[in-house]
Amino acid sequence: MILYDTPIAPNPRRVRWVMAEKAITDIEIVRWDLADGAHKAADFVAKTGTAQLPVLELDDGSMLTESLAICRYLESLYPEPNLFGRDAREMAMIEMWTRRAEMMVAIPFMHAVRHLAPALAALERQDPAVGGRNRDDGLAALHILDNQLTRSRWLAADRPTIADIVAFIGIDFTRLLRLPIPENLTHLRRWMAAMRERPAAAVR
Amino acid sequence: MILYDTPIAPNPRRVRWVMAEKAITDIEIVRWDLADGAHKAADFVAKTGTAQLPVLELDDGSMLTESLAICRYLESLYPEPNLFGRDAREMAMIEMWTRRAEMMVAIPFMHAVRHLAPALAALERQDPAVGGRNRDDGLAALHILDNQLTRSRWLAADRPTIADIVAFIGIDFTRLLRLPIPENLTHLRRWMAAMRERPAAAVR
Repeated sequence: MILYDTPIAPNPRRVRWVMAEKAITDIEIVRWDLADGAHKAADFVAKTGTAQLPVLELDDGSMLTESLAICRYLESLYPEPNLFGRDAREMAMIEMWTRRAEMMVAIPFMHAVRHLAPALAALERQDPAVGGRNRDDGLAALHILDNQLTRSRWLAADRPTIADIVAFIGIDFTRLLRLPIPENLTHLRRWMAAMRERPAAAVR
Repeated sequence: MILYDTPIAPNPRRVRWVMAEKAITDIEIVRWDLADGAHKAADFVAKTGTAQLPVLELDDGSMLTESLAICRYLESLYPEPNLFGRDAREMAMIEMWTRRAEMMVAIPFMHAVRHLAPALAALERQDPAVGGRNRDDGLAALHILDNQLTRSRWLAADRPTIADIVAFIGIDFTRLLRLPIPENLTHLRRWMAAMRERPAAAVR
């Protein structure tokens, strides 16, 4: 298998993080810079169907896009440590928290960075009003994670799961904006520190 | 179990569609009108963590939100007909197409309807520019689905799956805008007609 990867962007980082947690080393990695535009080449788009990264090329040549589809596929092939749940109820709760993390936090923060980060001005047509609204939406949703973390060390189970990975990467992407996590979200800050200490956090 | 449901909105419809495909009749349904605001009541939000519908209350009292987490949980309990995939590769491809359908089509069209539909003017603070941009994004992405449907009768497998359900409901929601599907997307239109004929399509 070949992983078509790119640095900086948060969605490809989910796949790298999952590979680090599972100590997967037998997948070839091809790393492209988004600014070079190789992922927009006509033959690549014809094979994948969209101009997006990451893409996992399977051994039969088919192209799997969408970071969470790739992560779940890796879970099937490399089941330990379990990141998506061991039974129906746990899988459901992990998916719920993964989707909350993505829809309420990661996606708004991604749009905020795209529209506000000076480093991305060359790649994006930036609209500061869109950026500001998304930044505020993401910040407002952090209290939902903080509230859950008053009850639980991790977001969705008794161990870190894909929900924690998606949430952490979504929040950490705001480092491009130097956005401070509000001081009063003490549980979220404790959890952020624990995520930052995981070896997978260093795989950038 | 109890399903807290609401009409019109597309995400709750996914759960009802899955229940219809699987002929699930032993889940109690409590149906609220979003305009009444019962889902925003403090005790309901305290139990669910957000003011969203649908919510599935499990037999142990825990509250499962996020329509796709609920649908996948129902797949665990009622495995036939299979909607999420039978092996790792099929599950991955179905998740990829579900996410494409959601991110590229269903979410833009949801924002388009919220911001443009006269019927929702009382529920939403509408911004026609945001609505127009989302409508155009959703329309532009339809060609990706149409292109896939040149190769395959259904989006992600040899049978209708959750990917088809998410895509169809996302597109069908634009009936509130009387948005015509472009004539040249002939494969998409053939597939829309096939989805509309399924008994689950009539469960509104």
